[in-house]
Amino acid sequence: MQPGQMAYDRGITVFSPDGRLFQVEYAREAVKKGTTTIGLKFKNGVILMVDKRLSSKLVEPGSIEKIYDIDDYIGCATSGLVADARVLIDEARKNAQRHKLHYDENIATEMLVKNVCDYKQNYTQYGGGRPFGVALLVAGVDDLGMHLFETDPSGALVAYRATCIGSGRPVVMDIFEREFEDGMSFEAAAKLGLKALGTAIDDTLSAASVEIGVVEKGKKFRRLSDSEITKLIGKV
Amino acid sequence: MQPGQMAYDRGITVFSPDGRLFQVEYAREAVKKGTTTIGLKFKNGVILMVDKRLSSKLVEPGSIEKIYDIDDYIGCATSGLVADARVLIDEARKNAQRHKLHYDENIATEMLVKNVCDYKQNYTQYGGGRPFGVALLVAGVDDLGMHLFETDPSGALVAYRATCIGSGRPVVMDIFEREFEDGMSFEAAAKLGLKALGTAIDDTLSAASVEIGVVEKGKKFRRLSDSEITKLIGKV
Amino acid sequence: MQPGQMAYDRGITVFSPDGRLFQVEYAREAVKKGTTTIGLKFKNGVILMVDKRLSSKLVEPGSIEKIYDIDDYIGCATSGLVADARVLIDEARKNAQRHKLHYDENIATEMLVKNVCDYKQNYTQYGGGRPFGVALLVAGVDDLGMHLFETDPSGALVAYRATCIGSGRPVVMDIFEREFEDGMSFEAAAKLGLKALGTAIDDTLSAASVEIGVVEKGKKFRRLSDSEITKLIGKV
Amino acid sequence: MQPGQMAYDRGITVFSPDGRLFQVEYAREAVKKGTTTIGLKFKNGVILMVDKRLSSKLVEPGSIEKIYDIDDYIGCATSGLVADARVLIDEARKNAQRHKLHYDENIATEMLVKNVCDYKQNYTQYGGGRPFGVALLVAGVDDLGMHLFETDPSGALVAYRATCIGSGRPVVMDIFEREFEDGMSFEAAAKLGLKALGTAIDDTLSAASVEIGVVEKGKKFRRLSDSEITKLIGKV
Amino acid sequence: MQPGQMAYDRGITVFSPDGRLFQVEYAREAVKKGTTTIGLKFKNGVILMVDKRLSSKLVEPGSIEKIYDIDDYIGCATSGLVADARVLIDEARKNAQRHKLHYDENIATEMLVKNVCDYKQNYTQYGGGRPFGVALLVAGVDDLGMHLFETDPSGALVAYRATCIGSGRPVVMDIFEREFEDGMSFEAAAKLGLKALGTAIDDTLSAASVEIGVVEKGKKFRRLSDSEITKLIGKV
Amino acid sequence: MQPGQMAYDRGITVFSPDGRLFQVEYAREAVKKGTTTIGLKFKNGVILMVDKRLSSKLVEPGSIEKIYDIDDYIGCATSGLVADARVLIDEARKNAQRHKLHYDENIATEMLVKNVCDYKQNYTQYGGGRPFGVALLVAGVDDLGMHLFETDPSGALVAYRATCIGSGRPVVMDIFEREFEDGMSFEAAAKLGLKALGTAIDDTLSAASVEIGVVEKGKKFRRLSDSEITKLIGKV
Amino acid sequence: MQPGQMAYDRGITVFSPDGRLFQVEYAREAVKKGTTTIGLKFKNGVILMVDKRLSSKLVEPGSIEKIYDIDDYIGCATSGLVADARVLIDEARKNAQRHKLHYDENIATEMLVKNVCDYKQNYTQYGGGRPFGVALLVAGVDDLGMHLFETDPSGALVAYRATCIGSGRPVVMDIFEREFEDGMSFEAAAKLGLKALGTAIDDTLSAASVEIGVVEKGKKFRRLSDSEITKLIGKV
Repeated sequence: MQPGQMAYDRGITVFSPDGRLFQVEYAREAVKKGTTTIGLKFKNGVILMVDKRLSSKLVEPGSIEKIYDIDDYIGCATSGLVADARVLIDEARKNAQRHKLHYDENIATEMLVKNVCDYKQNYTQYGGGRPFGVALLVAGVDDLGMHLFETDPSGALVAYRATCIGSGRPVVMDIFEREFEDGMSFEAAAKLGLKALGTAIDDTLSAASVEIGVVEKGKKFRRLSDSEITKLIGKV
Repeated sequence: MQPGQMAYDRGITVFSPDGRLFQVEYAREAVKKGTTTIGLKFKNGVILMVDKRLSSKLVEPGSIEKIYDIDDYIGCATSGLVADARVLIDEARKNAQRHKLHYDENIATEMLVKNVCDYKQNYTQYGGGRPFGVALLVAGVDDLGMHLFETDPSGALVAYRATCIGSGRPVVMDIFEREFEDGMSFEAAAKLGLKALGTAIDDTLSAASVEIGVVEKGKKFRRLSDSEITKLIGKV
Repeated sequence: MQPGQMAYDRGITVFSPDGRLFQVEYAREAVKKGTTTIGLKFKNGVILMVDKRLSSKLVEPGSIEKIYDIDDYIGCATSGLVADARVLIDEARKNAQRHKLHYDENIATEMLVKNVCDYKQNYTQYGGGRPFGVALLVAGVDDLGMHLFETDPSGALVAYRATCIGSGRPVVMDIFEREFEDGMSFEAAAKLGLKALGTAIDDTLSAASVEIGVVEKGKKFRRLSDSEITKLIGKV
Repeated sequence: MQPGQMAYDRGITVFSPDGRLFQVEYAREAVKKGTTTIGLKFKNGVILMVDKRLSSKLVEPGSIEKIYDIDDYIGCATSGLVADARVLIDEARKNAQRHKLHYDENIATEMLVKNVCDYKQNYTQYGGGRPFGVALLVAGVDDLGMHLFETDPSGALVAYRATCIGSGRPVVMDIFEREFEDGMSFEAAAKLGLKALGTAIDDTLSAASVEIGVVEKGKKFRRLSDSEITKLIGKV
Repeated sequence: MQPGQMAYDRGITVFSPDGRLFQVEYAREAVKKGTTTIGLKFKNGVILMVDKRLSSKLVEPGSIEKIYDIDDYIGCATSGLVADARVLIDEARKNAQRHKLHYDENIATEMLVKNVCDYKQNYTQYGGGRPFGVALLVAGVDDLGMHLFETDPSGALVAYRATCIGSGRPVVMDIFEREFEDGMSFEAAAKLGLKALGTAIDDTLSAASVEIGVVEKGKKFRRLSDSEITKLIGKV
Repeated sequence: MQPGQMAYDRGITVFSPDGRLFQVEYAREAVKKGTTTIGLKFKNGVILMVDKRLSSKLVEPGSIEKIYDIDDYIGCATSGLVADARVLIDEARKNAQRHKLHYDENIATEMLVKNVCDYKQNYTQYGGGRPFGVALLVAGVDDLGMHLFETDPSGALVAYRATCIGSGRPVVMDIFEREFEDGMSFEAAAKLGLKALGTAIDDTLSAASVEIGVVEKGKKFRRLSDSEITKLIGKV
Repeated sequence: MQPGQMAYDRGITVFSPDGRLFQVEYAREAVKKGTTTIGLKFKNGVILMVDKRLSSKLVEPGSIEKIYDIDDYIGCATSGLVADARVLIDEARKNAQRHKLHYDENIATEMLVKNVCDYKQNYTQYGGGRPFGVALLVAGVDDLGMHLFETDPSGALVAYRATCIGSGRPVVMDIFEREFEDGMSFEAAAKLGLKALGTAIDDTLSAASVEIGVVEKGKKFRRLSDSEITKLIGKV
């Protein structure tokens, strides 16, 4: 922490002398402590992959939803405060529904992500409410191609070929930077993702501990079944 | 308390430098001091069980309601600030009523719990009102199966097979982790719950000191009668 | 006062690190300094009894109203800030009137008390207004039986067989715990109440210094006349 | 001032740890510094009496209004901040007018005083505006009898036989406690009041330095003429 | 400054422990530094008189308006913050216009002054806006007689025979107390005012440095012409 | 800075103990650092003159507008925060347009300036927004004559024969006080203004570094062309 | 940092004693850390040029949009907080659309820029929201000519012949001041811009690392293709 930082870091509507918004940066810390969440593109689409190990064996297996569908061809995974995430997912879904209602077509992935990010930005500029402590990975396929967007608490968005949010990010990004290639097959990409996730969480993966979503050209966004996941893990 | 914590822990809309929301954490402390409240699944449904010992012998026996029905097939028990709990229970009931009015069907348990949790999340993000100092156990049976949800002041929710909120949680969870099994009979589950509750409050149980609710496939949520409770205690 | 308490005790919407709401606790202190106010059940109803000694002999005797009727079969006595009490009494009366208007029947005592307590709870959760510095004893008879409720500044409510709020509470409760019995006759209960009140205020009672209200099955809530009170005191 | 008092005494919506509202108490200090204002009952009515000595001989004699009529049979005198008093007097008058308009009858004195006190109480519970720094003596005659009410900045009200607000209160109350009697004639009561007022302000009274209002059964509230006052003073 | 004063003197809605409103007192300081402004009654009316010496010889002579007409028979002069004064003058004029519109008659001087003072009082009780840093002298003639009112930032008002606001007040009041007489002729009163003003500002008067307004029974409020002023000064 | 000043200088709605409004005074500092802006009357009209030297040679010459027309016969120049100035200019223009729309005539210069100053005053009395950090010189010709007004951040306004705002004020006013004369010809006044401006900014003037506006009886407000300015400078 | 600066630098609506608005200055720091963004005019139009090097090789090449079209003949590039920029770009586009709708013509570049700057200014004067941490370069061609505007967080705007915002500004401006000439050909201007950009970011340029937009008389605003950019870079 730099000297004097505490004088500027509690107000949402306050810049520090060097032009930083500390509350936004602190919200990012909530993301850095979050679930490891991976996104990566393959030849025909985009994969999302989330660590969903249970915090206690008394938790209902299968009850934890970590990957959400936003629209027919758009899926989303999050990292950070779970209740904040639910609010943003709802916002995204309503956004997609409104577009469908008004224009009778699916919303483009980028437009949807921008709308959600504008919603987030508001919470970094106006007092009365803190920023959202959550980052999103959004995977979508539309007329403009295949997309994997990462958003952060500031409302910024970046399109990635492969990325990761949450506590495992440093490990996963390191592996992706060395091993990710454009145009991989679904299986190759999924294996790379599972390898990175397993390394990051330093644990053995199983259908119970990882959730996978995929969207592909011409196919709607869907979650993989346990048997599909087990098969993929078997191949790693 | 970590150094400097006090600089960030009084504002609802303020993240600490490591991305925590202290007011939400402090609201959880109100829950940790609350009544020991247990939920556990059995073969055909879900049991809720609450410590309702009287604070004084002048209190009207039978007057204390600790288990609430939200909808025909959904019941709820709480731990934490009692007046806050009443507000959330009302919110949940209105939610269920609105759904019935609009769609002419019972609301799904998970949807109801999410709606209540969205309501809670609001109080963690906007200034003007503190978070709710209360956690809920919600038991429900619907077309999707049997459900036992635990919610906390942040607006997070987790589905459990068996869980406990309030001051007795550490003791109860320890017992459940060792002894709970899926698919127990109603009697086996109730006995396990009573054993755990008795151990946690370190007191002899009686129909006057414990309240039990149950929801079962095809049967509406109901509170057990004193004689039913006495019979169950007798079997422990 | 615990160390650091002052850092958390001025904001209404602020939890302390151990999950307490100090402003609510301080509002309770206003009640602890209030008029000694007693409620106790007897065989067929509920008695309310209030210390109404005059602060100066220039005060108009008989002008001080300490017991209020809320509805035909519901009465109320208060302890704490007198202007706050008046506001809550008005709220309760309007509540009862609205119910009568909408449903053409008397409101149930418990529903009325819950509504007033929800009103109180609001002032413990939202900024802009302090909690009410007043507790209420509500006595009512309805289809569900005879009721004696005590509410506090947090919005919590408890049903008692016999209770006391205000400065004399420790003394009175001590006597009640030893001597109160269920199913006492009106005279026995009234004598017990007068004895406890006299002991608590350490003064000789007279029709001028105590106000008594009673509600009984089949009879509306009413205040006793001076001669009735004098007669009862004579019997103690 | 008790230790730590300053930590709690600037917020309107803040209780001190012992349940006090300091801003209300400080507003009472403004009253204690105010004009000496007396009220006392006599056989058939109520007298109000106010010190209206001029602060400078350049002030227009006769211009200072210290006694106000609220309704036909209700008069009022105040002590404390004069601009605050004017606002409350207006509020009281509008209250009486509204009642007349809605019910075609004069408002009862007690109802009027309660309404004004509810208005005052609001300013002790909600932020955004300070309490009124003014106390009122209200004298009225109605179907329920003759009334002399004293209100304070908290919104509390007490019915007196004889009372005093403002800087002279200790001296006047001392005299009243020794010499006031129920059922005095108008002249006896007026003489007692003038004697007390003269003693309190330690000055010779004249028609120019004292204002007197009176309300009597069957006669509307009115201010005494200078010659009436002079005659009364002559008799003291 | 009394010890601890700074703890209470920045909030508008905050009483000090001795019942003072420091922000109102500080606003009065702005008046005490203001232009010397005089009002005095004569046999048939009221005179207002203001020091209007230019702050620089580059200021446009004749451009400075220090005396305002509010209604046909009501004039006003101010001392304190000039922009605040303009706002209050506008408020007063609109008030007079509204009255004329509604009742088709001129507003009484006292009613107008009370309305403006109620407007001022608001700014001493509610947060969000500071009190007006300005005092007004209002001169009027109506069916009730001739009036000279002085108002201050608290919203208090006093009727004077002769008075002064602004920096010269101590000197002027001293002269008035010794030399002012009721029923003086216009010339005598004007000469007394000019003498007092000249003494207070310790400067030679001229038509360029003093502005004079007058309202007289049966004659509308008007400003004296330069030649009239010169003639009057010549007689002093 | 006087001792204790910092205790009062951050709140807009806060008077200091000696009745000053520090935030308004600080806003004046922004003006004192502003562009040197001159206004002076001549026989038939008013001249405005502004230093418009470029901050960098990459700035588009001719792009910087420093003199604005508000209405056909009213022009304006400003000094202080440029974005604040733009907002006030817009406000002034809308004001003039509204007047034209409602009354089908040009607004009088003084009325326009008062309206803008009332707008400014608001920002010195209410919280939520800081005062405008800008002063205006307004030049106008109307039925009442020729006008040159100076306004400041408090909302005060003064009519000048010749004046200056911004960093060069002390130097310019010194020259004007010695050399300005009423009824100068346009050329004489313009030369005096240019001399003063050149001295104040201590730089050689050119058509590129000074902007000049003029309004004359019977001629609309207009900016001088570069050749006119060059010619005038040649004559100095 | 000057002594005492911290006392004034956290409030948006607070001037410092020397008339500065620190929060606006701090917002400018966010711009100074931003992407190097260049604008320069050539004979027939204006070029915008932005550094768009990827922060990671996993970022989708071609996904980062750094230059935006606002209207047919107006383009824009930004530096500073990216989410803030998106909000302002949207505001600008809506502004242009509204103009087209109302007047059936393209908005003039300067009017558009002023509107956006008025929007920005608001956030420097009112509390509740921080200033925008972003600067814009706006390039446009309209009936009034070719324009290159730079705006900053205060809402100020300056027309430049060539300019730069973001971290590379000092280096780029130094080169432009020495080498920029009016009336350069498109190729000469583009080469100068690329040279300056390359020097500022101290990196080799490629079509992947620089984005270029251009608007020319008679030709709509457009982004150069990768091959056009590659060709231009080849010529440097």
